[in-house]
Amino acid sequence: MELRPPAVRELLEQLQQLPGVGPRTATRLVQHLVREPDGSRRLALALARAADAVRHCSVCYLLTEEDPCPLCRDESRDAGLLCVVEDPLNAWAVEATGEFRGVYHVLGGTLDPLHGIGPEELTVAALLARVRKGGVREVIVATNPTVEGEATAHYLARVLRPAGPVITRIAFGLPAGGEISYADQVTLTRALAGRRGMD
Amino acid sequence: MELRPPAVRELLEQLQQLPGVGPRTATRLVQHLVREPDGSRRLALALARAADAVRHCSVCYLLTEEDPCPLCRDESRDAGLLCVVEDPLNAWAVEATGEFRGVYHVLGGTLDPLHGIGPEELTVAALLARVRKGGVREVIVATNPTVEGEATAHYLARVLRPAGPVITRIAFGLPAGGEISYADQVTLTRALAGRRGMD
Repeated sequence: MELRPPAVRELLEQLQQLPGVGPRTATRLVQHLVREPDGSRRLALALARAADAVRHCSVCYLLTEEDPCPLCRDESRDAGLLCVVEDPLNAWAVEATGEFRGVYHVLGGTLDPLHGIGPEELTVAALLARVRKGGVREVIVATNPTVEGEATAHYLARVLRPAGPVITRIAFGLPAGGEISYADQVTLTRALAGRRGMD
Repeated sequence: MELRPPAVRELLEQLQQLPGVGPRTATRLVQHLVREPDGSRRLALALARAADAVRHCSVCYLLTEEDPCPLCRDESRDAGLLCVVEDPLNAWAVEATGEFRGVYHVLGGTLDPLHGIGPEELTVAALLARVRKGGVREVIVATNPTVEGEATAHYLARVLRPAGPVITRIAFGLPAGGEISYADQVTLTRALAGRRGMD
């Protein structure tokens, strides 16, 4: 007979909708969640609240509960310096450096024609409109150093340059604490090509 | 500044309470969940419902929404044949074979003195009471083939035998479809020791 109660089956099914969660992981999670009903209720509340409250900022497409987001409304940020990232996580990482005082634009992914992702599937039109409105001196293209990220960066440079701003790409090279003999060839090639004068 | 909205921070924190979910996995999950608010709401509902509705059967400790569970109330099951498992998942797996017509008893773990898990932390007293009440011909000890599972099996055999039933242990040996030359030594040793006459 079916030993899994209906509520457990439903929870298993919903958990398996999550990326990277298969039947085994879902079953382990259910076991944990049933053992901790208070934790389950807290997670349920957090999920429902996030689903209701969190949206994309209509200006920069960061995740936010207010629109425009607090960063876009912060007049101390340099609106002339625009950092383009693939997703909100990458913006969080850039922001965590504490070194960036400009504003962001979240693309929502990378160009990927093989999977039907063209500029229309990303926030490219909104980015172009933002830049064309004027006031943006420099666009830092901070897409990932992957094939798709590079292709997207080149595409953006091509469409954004006529609008006026300087287009820059974040630097690629050896990661801090790295060991040259362990670096892969692409990284090392880029580190050499990107060499800078020592003052 | 902090770019993660409060609802996202709370969701990240709750997700990281789950076993095997660290900051990176939690962040990826949040990205998915925020992209799919309807999926988040369905998961939230399933979680809240499971937290409220699912408990352990007071007889066999399987997960259930009714107490006693449907299996314990099913008179067509052989109550004289009791299969002892570590957790509900293992009972689900045994039941999925379709070959077992008896009843279950979920221990809730294994003996693990180093981590403070003694018989009192498991459902051993309830198991002993069930067996002492009479009517149980055979107890199949189906704890996992691990050090802790084996130790628990030996302990159970020792405390249950005086109550009368035959105590058996599920068989260990080569898994179906396995290749002898790839089997580890413990498995192969057990497969040899457990050999049976061919009829």
